[in-house]
Amino acid sequence: MVGRLTAIYHVRSDARAIRARAQAIAIEQSVEMPLSAIDDAFVVSEIVGRVDGIRAHGDGVFEVRIALAVETIGRDAGQLINMLFGNTSLHDDVVLHDVDLPANLVTSFGGPRHGLADLRRRVDAGQRALTCSALKPQGLPPSALADLARRFAEGGIDYIKDDHGLADQHYARFSKRVEAITAALEKFPATRYVPSLSGDIDNMRHQLAIAARAGLDAVMVAPMLAGLANFHRLVREHTSFAFFAHPALAGAARLSPPLLIGKLFRMLGADAVIFPNHGGRFGYAPEACRALAKAALAGWEGLKPCVPVPAGGMSRERVPEMLDFYGADIMLLIGGALLAARERLVAETASFVAEVKNYGHG
Amino acid sequence: MVGRLTAIYHVRSDARAIRARAQAIAIEQSVEMPLSAIDDAFVVSEIVGRVDGIRAHGDGVFEVRIALAVETIGRDAGQLINMLFGNTSLHDDVVLHDVDLPANLVTSFGGPRHGLADLRRRVDAGQRALTCSALKPQGLPPSALADLARRFAEGGIDYIKDDHGLADQHYARFSKRVEAITAALEKFPATRYVPSLSGDIDNMRHQLAIAARAGLDAVMVAPMLAGLANFHRLVREHTSFAFFAHPALAGAARLSPPLLIGKLFRMLGADAVIFPNHGGRFGYAPEACRALAKAALAGWEGLKPCVPVPAGGMSRERVPEMLDFYGADIMLLIGGALLAARERLVAETASFVAEVKNYGHG
Repeated sequence: MVGRLTAIYHVRSDARAIRARAQAIAIEQSVEMPLSAIDDAFVVSEIVGRVDGIRAHGDGVFEVRIALAVETIGRDAGQLINMLFGNTSLHDDVVLHDVDLPANLVTSFGGPRHGLADLRRRVDAGQRALTCSALKPQGLPPSALADLARRFAEGGIDYIKDDHGLADQHYARFSKRVEAITAALEKFPATRYVPSLSGDIDNMRHQLAIAARAGLDAVMVAPMLAGLANFHRLVREHTSFAFFAHPALAGAARLSPPLLIGKLFRMLGADAVIFPNHGGRFGYAPEACRALAKAALAGWEGLKPCVPVPAGGMSRERVPEMLDFYGADIMLLIGGALLAARERLVAETASFVAEVKNYGHG
Repeated sequence: MVGRLTAIYHVRSDARAIRARAQAIAIEQSVEMPLSAIDDAFVVSEIVGRVDGIRAHGDGVFEVRIALAVETIGRDAGQLINMLFGNTSLHDDVVLHDVDLPANLVTSFGGPRHGLADLRRRVDAGQRALTCSALKPQGLPPSALADLARRFAEGGIDYIKDDHGLADQHYARFSKRVEAITAALEKFPATRYVPSLSGDIDNMRHQLAIAARAGLDAVMVAPMLAGLANFHRLVREHTSFAFFAHPALAGAARLSPPLLIGKLFRMLGADAVIFPNHGGRFGYAPEACRALAKAALAGWEGLKPCVPVPAGGMSRERVPEMLDFYGADIMLLIGGALLAARERLVAETASFVAEVKNYGHG
């Protein structure tokens, strides 16, 4: 007998049609053909998706639980998302809401190698929340990005990440950027630079080699741009690096953010996951943000906790509220609002850092 | 001065808010920070996204045209989709509807290497529509898949593709499957097998090597699972192979199918693009299907035409209607409906093939 995982969909349907719709999803996400044409006993009993439950949610939405064979996935992250949502992503009445995975599948992917404790240790943060800012806008030359990095570091920030728009453009090549920024941060050992990787997987490997030579130990990748299997491959190959996952192309409306960002990115090895906080530039609800942070941190088959990084239009004024909401197991990322301070950037960064450090001791 | 491309979004908004919303998207997809905090003249004039037009579509939807700097993209397909829809995919009021790209960007990606003419030539099809079926269900051993392939070939089908659920599962390893199926097709030189690639890019390269050793010259990849940049890398590396693109995870509701599947997949090198036909198991409208096929085939900066492959619950009865609708520059894919014929599979396949061959000569 093969193991099963459970995919949980939210399906818009009328009550009379939901049973047939659920069955159609179970077939679409497994054998993708008429059951009447399948003779093979193994396929019928073990491979065909099985509707395990249908529950009305109200407002014309139903929760549909479908058991899928773990054997269809192997150890392949691409095939995991293909089996969970490959064809069904093309149906606009369905959201992939959550998934229950057997323990051995979760542990075989491995999860974060460094995680919350190590990202704290690297910057000597004790048990407090971590701080982060972003280098932008794209279009600046390496020297200007390096100058921003130096000023963030003077303000005492823990992590400085690239904006996810910084790729390998001719006006700020990855290698030149890494060189200029690491030089600017030489005097600030408590601040870590996290460059963003881009291109195909071989470009990313090349960029990781440049980062390693520069003494860096963390990078950012957008797993939905890279492909989940390629993200997972990079994590397994580069054991000394912590991986920050960026949500670009994560298509929030159809793949539940707590599942995709909090759970799956973590399972594939993200040490920190950046996501749009509620009340910022993006439309995530507070409950979704809380569920995402919880999924990233919760005890789960022995995986290390992954650091939630709420972001997207945050400001210093929101620090106490965010720490109240999320607790201290978090990294606070403020980008544009610090940059908007312009010549006061160092002081503004220092205030942000102090606010985080003093929280709860006030 | 740098070149611009134009991203065209469909945005749900009320009329009073649309100007600000459009401006916010232009910033989100370029510099992602307050404009007031940007001093750099190059960034302000060349890199910041520019709202080029807003037009009411009715029903509370507006077409918003935003000019983005080509220099932010380089020659990187991952960065292209990141700049077009990376963060904005997280907003559920926006669909990426279309894009106008400068000629040199399009030609630098290269498009299909083989395309319609070559896929016809390989199976000696003249100017007629091509035929295709699919090996499934997943869960069958290689011998059973090979038996199905042989019977499709006896029926005279042109192309046989793997179901996109066939990966590298232990019950039908890629290598064993390719071996069994190519052996079964040895006597049928006019029928070509198109195995589906899975895993990370190194797994896919390994599978391409197996396919090459077996004498195959076409494979299927789901570009949204692989990551667009990795798909493009595989195309460039494997010049003798034709690439069929599968739409898994293409999330039709937020990325317009004619754009993503018809235009971008083609530009990155897909020789054939599989997509859900209208009236099948998926909810695509006829106009979207027509636009997709047109985008795949149309004259575009000298790129070769890419074969549209409408699929997803098609049947033999629909052949004349589909040929009327699309014309002959097409590959018709019927999977489950042929398999449902069971012991009559060869005869049913032969009828499908004859119907396509005789169309217009009746």
